[in-house]
Amino acid sequence: MDYYSSHINKLIESLSSLPGIGNKSAQRLAFHIINMSDEQVDALADAITGAKKNVHYCKECFTLTDEDLCPICRSEKRNHRQIMVVENTRDLAAYEKTGKYDGVYHVLHGAISPMLGVGPSDIKIKELIIRLQKDVDEVIIATNASLEGETTAMYIAKLVKPTGIKVSRIASGVPVGGDLENIDEVTLLRALEGRTEL
Amino acid sequence: MDYYSSHINKLIESLSSLPGIGNKSAQRLAFHIINMSDEQVDALADAITGAKKNVHYCKECFTLTDEDLCPICRSEKRNHRQIMVVENTRDLAAYEKTGKYDGVYHVLHGAISPMLGVGPSDIKIKELIIRLQKDVDEVIIATNASLEGETTAMYIAKLVKPTGIKVSRIASGVPVGGDLENIDEVTLLRALEGRTEL
Repeated sequence: MDYYSSHINKLIESLSSLPGIGNKSAQRLAFHIINMSDEQVDALADAITGAKKNVHYCKECFTLTDEDLCPICRSEKRNHRQIMVVENTRDLAAYEKTGKYDGVYHVLHGAISPMLGVGPSDIKIKELIIRLQKDVDEVIIATNASLEGETTAMYIAKLVKPTGIKVSRIASGVPVGGDLENIDEVTLLRALEGRTEL
Repeated sequence: MDYYSSHINKLIESLSSLPGIGNKSAQRLAFHIINMSDEQVDALADAITGAKKNVHYCKECFTLTDEDLCPICRSEKRNHRQIMVVENTRDLAAYEKTGKYDGVYHVLHGAISPMLGVGPSDIKIKELIIRLQKDVDEVIIATNASLEGETTAMYIAKLVKPTGIKVSRIASGVPVGGDLENIDEVTLLRALEGRTEL
């Protein structure tokens, strides 16, 4: 791409290394950035370096935060005796958006995956078990309904059960608004197994 | 989004202000950036500010470059008597990728659009006319085949013709590999009008 200047090439290259951004999008973004005002460009660059420098794990639940404890772990309104285990901060955000969960979280930062070489010690499971030494009523496992998510859920359930703390798993089934004919068989079977009496 | 830290929120906001990046993509990108190494993050931020600071218009053809003259205008291998007029640098790049055009370019940075309030003086048309005082054999107008592109082409053609320099317009027709039944009527009519004898 020697028809672009080296600075444009470098920017296009940097942008296209980000997930979900191909070469065409990177070009469009690069030209957009060049046409932005100086202040906007500086704000964007500062947001990037600022987030990287200041964001780290919450000491309690391991979500990403810029203070020692995240707003959820600091909140007195939340039920600290109920811990929802999620794979990552985006999953936490998804449940927070429902506005209906008032417990706290534990972010694993991954799921057990022998295929990818991710073992139990590579994710924040040990840290979860340590948290259980405090007063906890229930551990709700909300890992994904994938092979890795299920494996992780089983593994954690086995560790937690001997402590006598209640362990539960979020329901798996037909999504609301889902059209039965478009849903895979495994989900349909799960929905059948998990049926509730009316 | 008070479940994220303020630095993450700021980054998500900055990213989602870019074209084609919605809130979900911005979240995914933000978490990816936070997980990148310090060096990668600095390189990304530097690429952004570096491109903005160092990139400006080529003095001759007005493409984006980081030197006085772009590599194409500097090149002695190119035919400087043939000027292809394009709307923006991405269109220039598209023709460069064909590898078959050896003339030079003129980048308008837009097209005449009464709807958007873009007049002839808002794009680099005056600068094109000034370039024609040098020895030029042909002006090839390669603006888009849209209403704005056609209007711009007509306007430029009218200005160039009195100088006696040849003005041409790239062909409009059925794209290679295009299926006739999926092509709009205007394109089909253009293809008919522009038919060549075999």
